[in-house]
Amino acid sequence: MELDWIRYLAKILPNHPRLAVGIGDDAAVLEWGSGNACLVAVDIVSDGADFHLGEIDPALAGRKALAVNLSDLAAMAAQPVAAVVALGLPRRNARNLAERVYEGLLTLAAEYEVAIAGGDTHVWDGPLFLAVTVLGLPGPGGIWKRDGAKPNDVIVVTGSLGGSILGKHLHFRPRVREALYLAQNYEVHAAIDISDGLLLDLARVAEASGLAAEISLQAIPVDPAAERLSLENGTNRSPLEHALSDGEDYELILAVPPEEAERMLKDPAVGVSLTAIGRFVEGEGLWHVEGNFRARLEPAGYVHGNSHQPFGK
Amino acid sequence: MELDWIRYLAKILPNHPRLAVGIGDDAAVLEWGSGNACLVAVDIVSDGADFHLGEIDPALAGRKALAVNLSDLAAMAAQPVAAVVALGLPRRNARNLAERVYEGLLTLAAEYEVAIAGGDTHVWDGPLFLAVTVLGLPGPGGIWKRDGAKPNDVIVVTGSLGGSILGKHLHFRPRVREALYLAQNYEVHAAIDISDGLLLDLARVAEASGLAAEISLQAIPVDPAAERLSLENGTNRSPLEHALSDGEDYELILAVPPEEAERMLKDPAVGVSLTAIGRFVEGEGLWHVEGNFRARLEPAGYVHGNSHQPFGK
Repeated sequence: MELDWIRYLAKILPNHPRLAVGIGDDAAVLEWGSGNACLVAVDIVSDGADFHLGEIDPALAGRKALAVNLSDLAAMAAQPVAAVVALGLPRRNARNLAERVYEGLLTLAAEYEVAIAGGDTHVWDGPLFLAVTVLGLPGPGGIWKRDGAKPNDVIVVTGSLGGSILGKHLHFRPRVREALYLAQNYEVHAAIDISDGLLLDLARVAEASGLAAEISLQAIPVDPAAERLSLENGTNRSPLEHALSDGEDYELILAVPPEEAERMLKDPAVGVSLTAIGRFVEGEGLWHVEGNFRARLEPAGYVHGNSHQPFGK
Repeated sequence: MELDWIRYLAKILPNHPRLAVGIGDDAAVLEWGSGNACLVAVDIVSDGADFHLGEIDPALAGRKALAVNLSDLAAMAAQPVAAVVALGLPRRNARNLAERVYEGLLTLAAEYEVAIAGGDTHVWDGPLFLAVTVLGLPGPGGIWKRDGAKPNDVIVVTGSLGGSILGKHLHFRPRVREALYLAQNYEVHAAIDISDGLLLDLARVAEASGLAAEISLQAIPVDPAAERLSLENGTNRSPLEHALSDGEDYELILAVPPEEAERMLKDPAVGVSLTAIGRFVEGEGLWHVEGNFRARLEPAGYVHGNSHQPFGK
C-alpha cells in the first residue's frame, strides 16, 4: 500500500497558495507571512510497530515519538520550535503510562528547546499510539529539500548505519544541531533522514532529483550494532546488509557539491562523523560502483514496523 | 483522569519564550517572528468513541476529524491555514477506508481553504483513529482567549444546542467565518467552543476568567434534535438537559460587553443565530438565575466518547 498510497495522495491533494513544499518531503513548508515560513511534520509511533511497551520504559516511547519528528526537521535543516502531542492510551494503568510517556518526551523537548504547545490525550480500547506534530522555522542557512541533488554531488552520510533495532532506534540523537551547522556553513543541494534504510531513502533523493546514485559498498559506515545483529542474532544477513537496509538510523544523507564535500569532511566542528559513500550522476536507480565494476542495487529498505509508512516520505 | 490530567500537565509543561498561549485554551499560540503568530490545535477522533465506523460513511470520520479542529480555531477567532493528518487504519480494507476518510476530509478542507500539508498513514492492529493538527493565523480582529471575560459581560451562544448525537456531530459547520466576522466587528472578551456541553464549557470560561456565570435556563436555545432525542429515544432527560450537557454542539460561547452584545444580537450579517443566555459576574461557579431566584448549577457536561478529553480544554 505505501508507495502507491503516497502517489495517490500526491495526486489528490490540491495545491494551496501558502503551501510551498507539500507531500513528498520530510516536512511541509508553509508561507507564514512577512517572509517567514513554518515547517511542519507528523509521525505516528505505536506499540507493536515501533516498540514493545512490555519490553521498554514507556518514557522511551515518548522520547521516540518526538525524536523521529525532530529528525524530519533536521532533514530540512530547520530549527524545531514546538510540538503538539496526540496520545492514545490503553485503559489499563493509563495515568501512570501517560506520565512516563510525557517524562521521556519532555526530557528530549528540553534538550532541543522545543515547546510542548498542546495536545490531546485519549484513553481508549486500542493500543498505545503517539502522533507528534512538530513545527519549525527555517534555519539561518535556509532549508534543504530532497529534490535538489545535482550531477556529481557527493553523497555524504552522518554517523554509522545498521542494527538500530538493538537500541539506537530508542536512543538516537536527531541531527538537528549538526544540520543547522552544516546548512549555515556549506552548500548542500538535498537531504533526507534515514528512517527506512540507506538504500530506500537514498533512492528517494535520487528519484526526487531525477538522478541516479552510485555508491561504494566498501565505503558504507557500518555500525558495530549491525555487526552484533548479524553475529549474535543469527539474522542470516551480513553487517553491510543491515547497514544498507535496516532503517531507523535517523542519520542524514546529504547531496553536496564536490568542493564543499571536501571541506566538510575535514571539518572537526560538525559534531558527528561524516562519510562520503558515492555520488549522484545522470540517469536513474541505485548503483554499486567500485572502480570499473557497476551493478544495479535494489532499494530493498526495511519499512519499519508493520506497514508503518509516513506518507510524507 | 481528565481534569486531573490537564492540571498535572499544566504544572509540568515548562514555559517557552515562543509560547504565548499554551495548555488550557482551545489552541496554542506561538510567536512566529515579525509580529506574526501561529495557532495550533490537535484533536483525536476514533472509532468507538467519536463514531461507529460500521454505521457511518467513513468520509464523515475524516470530515469530523478536521471539523473539530477547525472549531477550536474558530473559538480563538483564528483563520485556518493548514492541517496535517495522522491516520491509523485497521488492516482490513485499509486502502479503501483511507480513500473514503480522505475524501471527507478534503471536501471540508476545500470549503475552508485549508491546505493538507502532510501526514502519516499507519496501518496497524488497532481501531481507526485520526489525529489532525491544524495551524492558523490570527484573524484581522485579533484572537480570543477563554480567560478574558469581565463582570457584566453578556454570555452569548451561537446556534442551538443539544441532541448532536442524532447527526450534527458529524455534519456541523465549524463557526470559523462567523468568528472571524464577529472578532472584526465587535469587542469579544472571551470565547470557547462547546465540545463537552454548554455547562461544562461555560464553567471553563468562568473559571479561567475568575468569575461566576449566571444563566437563564429559559433562554437556552434548545435544538429540535434535543427534543427528538428526549422524546423518541427515551433518554429520561428533558430537551433542556440535553441542551445543557450533551456536548459536541461545536457552537461558540462568547463573553461580550453589554453594549456590544446589544448591537451584535441585532446584526443580520453574522450568519448564525445568536442568543444571550446570561452574564458573567463576580464570584465563582455556574448559577441558574430567573428574576430573584438563584440556584447553583453543576457543570455535569457530557465528556464525549470514552474518556476522550482534549487536554487543551
